[in-house]
Amino acid sequence: MQNQKIIVHYEEFIFSDRSERLLLNNGLHFGPVTIRFETYGKLNKEKSNGILILHSFSSDSHAAGWYSKKDQSPGWWHDMIGHNRAFNTQRFFIVCSNVLGGCNGSTGPSSINPQTHKPYGLSFPVITIKDMVNAQYYLMQHLDIPQWYAVAGGSMGGMQALEWVITYPKKVQRTILIATTPSLSTQALAFNFIGRSAIMSDPHWKHGDYYQSKKKPSYGLSIARMLAHITYVSETSLSMKFGRKIQERERFVLDFEDQFTIESYLKHQGTKFVNRFDANTYLYLSKAMDYFDIAASYGSIESALRKSKSKFLIISFSSDWRFPPQASKKLVTALIRTHHEVSYVELECPFGHDCFLLKTEQQAKLIKGFLNA
Amino acid sequence: MQNQKIIVHYEEFIFSDRSERLLLNNGLHFGPVTIRFETYGKLNKEKSNGILILHSFSSDSHAAGWYSKKDQSPGWWHDMIGHNRAFNTQRFFIVCSNVLGGCNGSTGPSSINPQTHKPYGLSFPVITIKDMVNAQYYLMQHLDIPQWYAVAGGSMGGMQALEWVITYPKKVQRTILIATTPSLSTQALAFNFIGRSAIMSDPHWKHGDYYQSKKKPSYGLSIARMLAHITYVSETSLSMKFGRKIQERERFVLDFEDQFTIESYLKHQGTKFVNRFDANTYLYLSKAMDYFDIAASYGSIESALRKSKSKFLIISFSSDWRFPPQASKKLVTALIRTHHEVSYVELECPFGHDCFLLKTEQQAKLIKGFLNA
Repeated sequence: MQNQKIIVHYEEFIFSDRSERLLLNNGLHFGPVTIRFETYGKLNKEKSNGILILHSFSSDSHAAGWYSKKDQSPGWWHDMIGHNRAFNTQRFFIVCSNVLGGCNGSTGPSSINPQTHKPYGLSFPVITIKDMVNAQYYLMQHLDIPQWYAVAGGSMGGMQALEWVITYPKKVQRTILIATTPSLSTQALAFNFIGRSAIMSDPHWKHGDYYQSKKKPSYGLSIARMLAHITYVSETSLSMKFGRKIQERERFVLDFEDQFTIESYLKHQGTKFVNRFDANTYLYLSKAMDYFDIAASYGSIESALRKSKSKFLIISFSSDWRFPPQASKKLVTALIRTHHEVSYVELECPFGHDCFLLKTEQQAKLIKGFLNA
Repeated sequence: MQNQKIIVHYEEFIFSDRSERLLLNNGLHFGPVTIRFETYGKLNKEKSNGILILHSFSSDSHAAGWYSKKDQSPGWWHDMIGHNRAFNTQRFFIVCSNVLGGCNGSTGPSSINPQTHKPYGLSFPVITIKDMVNAQYYLMQHLDIPQWYAVAGGSMGGMQALEWVITYPKKVQRTILIATTPSLSTQALAFNFIGRSAIMSDPHWKHGDYYQSKKKPSYGLSIARMLAHITYVSETSLSMKFGRKIQERERFVLDFEDQFTIESYLKHQGTKFVNRFDANTYLYLSKAMDYFDIAASYGSIESALRKSKSKFLIISFSSDWRFPPQASKKLVTALIRTHHEVSYVELECPFGHDCFLLKTEQQAKLIKGFLNA
């Protein structure tokens, strides 16, 4: 059973296509909206066992299982979701949806605008983390779930989890925030800006109108990804994995070819990403992360969280310099000040922000304990 | 006197244009070579007071003084060089030359190849830090200096200073190494690779053959510079200076314009750089830094330094994550093991690698003490 490939499939839910339209943070109404989602486990009769998993920047609704027996790799959080896993599908009904603005089934800039019959491109509205959460709220109603047993997410997923408990304080009983932050640091804003600049200065980007072209802004997107990748890992992990190792070549030559294995590794990461991600979605989602700032939006972190009755589990990683422990501690302090039950663990892990996806065993223990308490 | 603008001028020295050609690290002979340099102070009768200042990646031979009374800013290390300054021009004869491969007067990829009457572009040979030092050795002979009282440099300048004392152990009496490293970290290799990728994927780069074109690879070079800039400063300094401040605009709008002041600041840094630096030089110099690895080149740091009789002053900065204190400490350990006199100071400074250019007062004290001991 353990070794069998659990075959899953995705579903799609369309809303905001008639009278009641999704009201965006920028004041506009938008629709129709398709949200692609997957579920694992079964909703109980009381509808009290629903857990919403929120994905990070470049992930999607495929959190666990395989689409077919031939699939090479399972969903992005497979180790955490399933029979007796952290998110136990014997007990919980797990939901994961691709975010609004995404490029993996949910409506985003690469989707066809039904009014023009062409992809939205830059005519897609600029969206925020709150807009993503509001779209997920429609999905929650569609699934007939009155309240989440828990919402959980890492990185940008943690931002959504935070926004959930702030915007819908009565709908969330437990909140799990992993390697996340109440707002991006200046350095993270700077890295995001450079990633977007690389995409937008690629001549094939054409102000976002590249969907009909043969050539896509692949160079720009690849540079953005390579850069982001460095911020997901630590110098320690790069140094352990690659150090200053030279590529296998006949001899060490002084030229402009990839010389060090770190170079070809990065190039490979860039290329892989280009094949599965949309450049405009990169722009929209990175902007949504930039805008996310609960202190600025709600006066202070404390006042943002005051209405919530949720319990919190917050996990950070010692070597994460993109979403450093310091950022999680700000949340912890605000939650204590507003009399919340909060467990905080800073896990020792040398691999940077990626620890969130790598260090699953220790996280699983913490999450199991938190969900079963 | 103190407030007067000291007018300086540069000189140029041409060598390797006849029989004896510069032997490069890659085994080729190359020439002719022009080295642009500046000197401050006077060489004494004994020719024993010469100090060679070695510049960092994006600097040049203009280390001190003004070129004219209208000049807005002086040379890059002006605070450190002059009457009663750290490098006291009353006592020392200071020399600073633009590196081989540079774009500020010394022969580099943007120079005219006398055989083709066109700029070298990528036909310029790939060069190393050792090649830069060997070119400086010709300059030393040209200036009739038998031995340096001291060599000093920060960042890539520190790499050159290190290479000087290794390659010409009898020519260097004192070595000052600031915010430097015996080899780049994997993370620094990764950042350099992405910078080069941005330049080389700019369609105006044209495999380095853009000098005759109207359009230059400005986008690529600007992205490379913005990225490098983040690694020169710390999150603390970015956060102190910019935080999440919004640009002065009528209202906070959700769009793709520069929203945060950090964004327009970075853009400004990129544009300024494009106007003064050559994209191909960026490629060649960053490669030279990547290749620099004294442990790999000489068996170990210890064996590289064994022949030197120099005294050493090594300075690092607490928040420098590009050339971290850890890298300087490796040098200190190797120097102690090889029985050198070495003073090491890690200065507390929150501004990252840039502390080298910002924190001059404390460095000046240390350097004065070291040079006068």
